[in-house]
Amino acid sequence: MQSDLSGITNIALDAMGGDYAPAEPVKGAVDAVNVRDDIKIFLLGQEDVVARELEKYTYPKEQIQVVHAPEVIETAEPPVNAIRGKKQSSIVIGMNMVKRQEADAFVSAGSSGAVLVGGQVIVGRIKGIERPPLAPLIPTEKGVSLLIDCGANVDARSSHLVQFAKMGSIYMENVLHISKPRVAIVNIGAEEEKGNALVKETIPLLRALEDIHFVGCIEAREIPRGAADVIVCEAFVGNVILKLYEGLSSTLIGVIKKGMMSTLKSKIGAALALPSLKSTIKAFDASQYGGAPLLGLNGLVVKTHGSSKAQEITNAVYQCVTFKQQDINGKIRKNIIGSQEQK
Amino acid sequence: MQSDLSGITNIALDAMGGDYAPAEPVKGAVDAVNVRDDIKIFLLGQEDVVARELEKYTYPKEQIQVVHAPEVIETAEPPVNAIRGKKQSSIVIGMNMVKRQEADAFVSAGSSGAVLVGGQVIVGRIKGIERPPLAPLIPTEKGVSLLIDCGANVDARSSHLVQFAKMGSIYMENVLHISKPRVAIVNIGAEEEKGNALVKETIPLLRALEDIHFVGCIEAREIPRGAADVIVCEAFVGNVILKLYEGLSSTLIGVIKKGMMSTLKSKIGAALALPSLKSTIKAFDASQYGGAPLLGLNGLVVKTHGSSKAQEITNAVYQCVTFKQQDINGKIRKNIIGSQEQK
Repeated sequence: MQSDLSGITNIALDAMGGDYAPAEPVKGAVDAVNVRDDIKIFLLGQEDVVARELEKYTYPKEQIQVVHAPEVIETAEPPVNAIRGKKQSSIVIGMNMVKRQEADAFVSAGSSGAVLVGGQVIVGRIKGIERPPLAPLIPTEKGVSLLIDCGANVDARSSHLVQFAKMGSIYMENVLHISKPRVAIVNIGAEEEKGNALVKETIPLLRALEDIHFVGCIEAREIPRGAADVIVCEAFVGNVILKLYEGLSSTLIGVIKKGMMSTLKSKIGAALALPSLKSTIKAFDASQYGGAPLLGLNGLVVKTHGSSKAQEITNAVYQCVTFKQQDINGKIRKNIIGSQEQK
Repeated sequence: MQSDLSGITNIALDAMGGDYAPAEPVKGAVDAVNVRDDIKIFLLGQEDVVARELEKYTYPKEQIQVVHAPEVIETAEPPVNAIRGKKQSSIVIGMNMVKRQEADAFVSAGSSGAVLVGGQVIVGRIKGIERPPLAPLIPTEKGVSLLIDCGANVDARSSHLVQFAKMGSIYMENVLHISKPRVAIVNIGAEEEKGNALVKETIPLLRALEDIHFVGCIEAREIPRGAADVIVCEAFVGNVILKLYEGLSSTLIGVIKKGMMSTLKSKIGAALALPSLKSTIKAFDASQYGGAPLLGLNGLVVKTHGSSKAQEITNAVYQCVTFKQQDINGKIRKNIIGSQEQK
């Protein structure tokens, strides 16, 4: 606990976002403040609804404050319209709190589109950052890797990917405490002459960077094996990787469960093996590591999965504390200014 | 068996390609001709090596002929150099047999790059086809889907994707016998306003086609659920999907096996459940459906996985027979000429 060194981290938390709102975000907030005293959480949502949820729990009252946000942005709403139209929504209010530095971070399990748009439009980019990437952690055999970018802005340029590589490296080193994180770019072969125009243009730029540990190209096949810590790609490709990860994992686990239920003998086997199996599958679940940060903003915005339960929310809150204490944005600023001076 | 209707299918088979060459390709050839009498296989490879393998088996001698190919293209060789330099390799000889119509198809588990380059450079494209896509079948909950394109030529144009959609639809309808195959384009959301420039440009073109059943955008998450029969994408994205499919499946199955071996109780459970589990995982294995055709060529080239065993080779051979009997190239020609007349 480093609260004496760096003070309190103020976190705006969307109590209305995600499939299990408000129950799970509220529980996540309570769990976090019951463990750590260096956190203050602003719970954003319809006041009566949130207050009713909060009444179920015992917690240090001074660490949670409800902020009334009467409007709710639905997942299906066009993001730009939602951000413009619903000024009293939890997402817009939370983003504005970060912008005004009333909060260090905003955490939401709500509409991805609205969170991405709000982060860029309301919170705004760090000067010199061309594009803020969404960077979820994905599970691997060896732990987790940062997949950067999975955001909304596709058709990136090579200069964007270079910044993604730097920001991702800073994040993994300082938030996940991985020394000299291995940075790789997604390609369709290990050889550098392969790839599309964007990748071919980006490889020499990454190789020229002295402040990251660039290990070359990574084929998608190697990602689940944990062959790199920071996996750089353009957002369309990143989105395909992230979604296929989710879809294929859930399909395969479903197929396997079905297979184990097909005969009486295998049913008995399944019953015996299931507890161990569950804990293994749980380890292959990114949610325990918190949410996906939208990096390069004047503040921090973290998007957690729409199906987030309290534990994921709590972990996302802790992630915000580390982010502040490690001064990630200070490091990003220094790094970007450093590279601009080289030009 | 339709041998009386369509005669013999002549197949040039690379006996030197893949991790288990020559043993498995040779066994695959023998198995095929022992089942069907409407196939003739030319086994391409170093004559003495192939002949020695063949001696192990009983089969109708007139259905297999060894063609001497003294040179071998290694997987690591740069494809263009290999195709240009090794005229006496099994791949170059096989491609030339297709070009000269001495063979209807060429099947290889060897170097992907050399097979892709050879197909385009030696066999050549059907007039009007802008780019020949590599189209593997990938396993889903419901069976298989055709992923088109996973080839070597990235940065496609929308007109390429339109042809992929048409060719994929013809293939799934006539080779896999799926009536009115559902064609979808890979996108980062179900909504048509999302996506990169290429996808946005292609969607209205696909929607305007009357000869395919276009069902809109597919997110990568939905692919393992079997939400479409023909999955259209640019080759870089297709390659990422294919490789991640392989990598994630093998990692997850490994993780699950390890999980089931972690306690004595779960070990006993695993022993009981394993036979059922194996047959389920087997069903989620694309190799039983044969290899990936390189479509749109003057003939047929099929690439099977580098780790192909005899069964996959045999299935690829059968696939070639269906391809010929269903006159897929005739249908592709008619379809392309048809759409050119509309312009």
